[in-house]
Amino acid sequence: MVPSIRREEMSMKRRDFIKGAVPAAAGLAAASSLSAPAYAQGKRQLKLVTTWPKNFPGLGTGAQRYADRITAMTDGTLEVKLFAAGELVPPFESFDAVSTGTADMYHGAEYYWQGKSPAFNFFAAVPFGLTATEMNAWIYHGGGQQLWDELSAKFNIKAMPCGNTGVQMGGWFNKEITSLDDFKGLTMRMPGLGGEVLRKIGATAVALPGGEIFPALQSGAIDATEWVGPWNDLAFGFYRIAKFYYYPGFHEPGATLSTGINLDTWNELTEGQKAVVEAAAKAENTYMLAEFNAQNGNALNTLVNEHNVQLKKFPEDVLKAIGKASGEVIADLAAQNEDVAKVYDSFIKFRQNAMEWASVSDQAYWEARALDYPYGG
Amino acid sequence: MVPSIRREEMSMKRRDFIKGAVPAAAGLAAASSLSAPAYAQGKRQLKLVTTWPKNFPGLGTGAQRYADRITAMTDGTLEVKLFAAGELVPPFESFDAVSTGTADMYHGAEYYWQGKSPAFNFFAAVPFGLTATEMNAWIYHGGGQQLWDELSAKFNIKAMPCGNTGVQMGGWFNKEITSLDDFKGLTMRMPGLGGEVLRKIGATAVALPGGEIFPALQSGAIDATEWVGPWNDLAFGFYRIAKFYYYPGFHEPGATLSTGINLDTWNELTEGQKAVVEAAAKAENTYMLAEFNAQNGNALNTLVNEHNVQLKKFPEDVLKAIGKASGEVIADLAAQNEDVAKVYDSFIKFRQNAMEWASVSDQAYWEARALDYPYGG
Repeated sequence: MVPSIRREEMSMKRRDFIKGAVPAAAGLAAASSLSAPAYAQGKRQLKLVTTWPKNFPGLGTGAQRYADRITAMTDGTLEVKLFAAGELVPPFESFDAVSTGTADMYHGAEYYWQGKSPAFNFFAAVPFGLTATEMNAWIYHGGGQQLWDELSAKFNIKAMPCGNTGVQMGGWFNKEITSLDDFKGLTMRMPGLGGEVLRKIGATAVALPGGEIFPALQSGAIDATEWVGPWNDLAFGFYRIAKFYYYPGFHEPGATLSTGINLDTWNELTEGQKAVVEAAAKAENTYMLAEFNAQNGNALNTLVNEHNVQLKKFPEDVLKAIGKASGEVIADLAAQNEDVAKVYDSFIKFRQNAMEWASVSDQAYWEARALDYPYGG
Repeated sequence: MVPSIRREEMSMKRRDFIKGAVPAAAGLAAASSLSAPAYAQGKRQLKLVTTWPKNFPGLGTGAQRYADRITAMTDGTLEVKLFAAGELVPPFESFDAVSTGTADMYHGAEYYWQGKSPAFNFFAAVPFGLTATEMNAWIYHGGGQQLWDELSAKFNIKAMPCGNTGVQMGGWFNKEITSLDDFKGLTMRMPGLGGEVLRKIGATAVALPGGEIFPALQSGAIDATEWVGPWNDLAFGFYRIAKFYYYPGFHEPGATLSTGINLDTWNELTEGQKAVVEAAAKAENTYMLAEFNAQNGNALNTLVNEHNVQLKKFPEDVLKAIGKASGEVIADLAAQNEDVAKVYDSFIKFRQNAMEWASVSDQAYWEARALDYPYGG
């Protein structure tokens, strides 16, 4: 839990200020230490902290679009000011900053808060879990949002989906993976739950920040790395060192990005402002996924046709072993406490239905479309 | 093309009215035949016509959510009033109504306007074309929206995606389909381009409105029918008559719903109001797809486990023949005129990239996840 005294002090201050600001905005603004111009005309500025570098392609630009959309929709009466990672607080302190009221909102990924509760993992990505469209189905229409609300409220936060990377890639390897044995003793950069899965199948998993991956791969300190997908991976230039690009990315099949809002701030918003924030988050949710899919398609083309990258699918015995290990890793989480168990139960039940539906819808369709027949062009 | 005189008259009238309304709203409102209360307080009411029955699950309820969201986000200063199919104009006259200014906006599917230009098909669904997530990638980030804007502007409309059914089902059959020969002489309800594909493989395709399908199937007037997916199909009770439920729905792999706005109305909106409409459409785009996926998963479960429906996959030779026929049908469209050819070229090029990306991302992931291994539960 976050320190409650600081949070209550901060939120009391804000509540008192806002209550007074509505009937007599100009007078209060003059008397306050908060930004006078922002409040003088009934305006409010919200600080959005993010876990991404400024305008990092996809994630950072998406967070910026989300902020700008809210500002535009309200004609600036809700002005969202974005702070990139480290500008106001270090990236992984974004959650605490919003919880305590140092910032009003965050844009990040819930698995960064797994130290607060392992249950947060389920609202970002779990190995062999749900894809982007399935995550949305579970969260919006399968009970996920209610469970998320219960969990986040304990930290004085209201959170919701706000973007998705889509299915990620399995990673870059400097040797071929022909069987499960090839993972034994292999050192791979893979943070979080995916890393735990790798450990279960005999690999050494390390967590390195983005900027340290390339030199580690070059020096041989690591044998393999995952990052995001073709778009972001191409920019990092991993193809210069590792020849084999493996799929599918079992560890993050639809990494959901999220926005969280200080619950006191949220409750102070008007119904119209709440509707604006919710629509902006949903809009970015679909827009970012579309961007990743479009850009990944182009980048994959470049990697294969210009840089001669060899695309490889993980062998079936590796995928089965990873699937089993993935199930064990999240069952271990569920065993930790009732909060996690409750989310896990809902997630697992939804996943079963989703797999059956996928087998006759998207999955079956994609397989059929990929059969050999002439089509236009 | 729409009758240009009527359109220009209507739009002139609205432009003049609005120009005057900003500085002296009350006086103009009193002198106008348009709703006085809506304008008296700087408010504006927009008429949204739809092609769906009132609150039809998924499509009608989605259109209503879209309308309500705009109203809520603007605190009612833009109040969107929804008219179900037939309430203001017949469903398929929605496009003309918006084009001429009889209504301000529509919610429908672009293939309903294929009589205006066959190019509209590409912004809704084409057989063996793009899925929901791929449509979004093409439209938002692959040049699709620009092509759509050029096309719609010729009819005085600005249109954008506003919902998706996801992959549909192949349909209900009263006998098994074991080879392409079983389609010869078969009479199936399938409107639009899908119907043309069926004709190419020797079937008789008929277009029946929703309410007439059940009796036609019961009397034997048709041997088979498609509708939408498990959620809507379960409600219609087709399982009472036809035993075999085939997949995948090659004809509508991600039917995109859309909203169109009279271009004069659009241009009169403030930047903030435009941002509201765009975010509301994007929000509904992701929210409706999520609803279809969640509800289809549940309904499929009910159909199989409670109503003993037999799920069947179309045989490979059938799918290949359908794939080839689908390519021919849309190439025929492209041959009609340059407007269609331009959209077709962009679509086909994007589809090629999308197929390569799907083969290493969603498709590969779903196949891997479906392998046999224990996972939680």
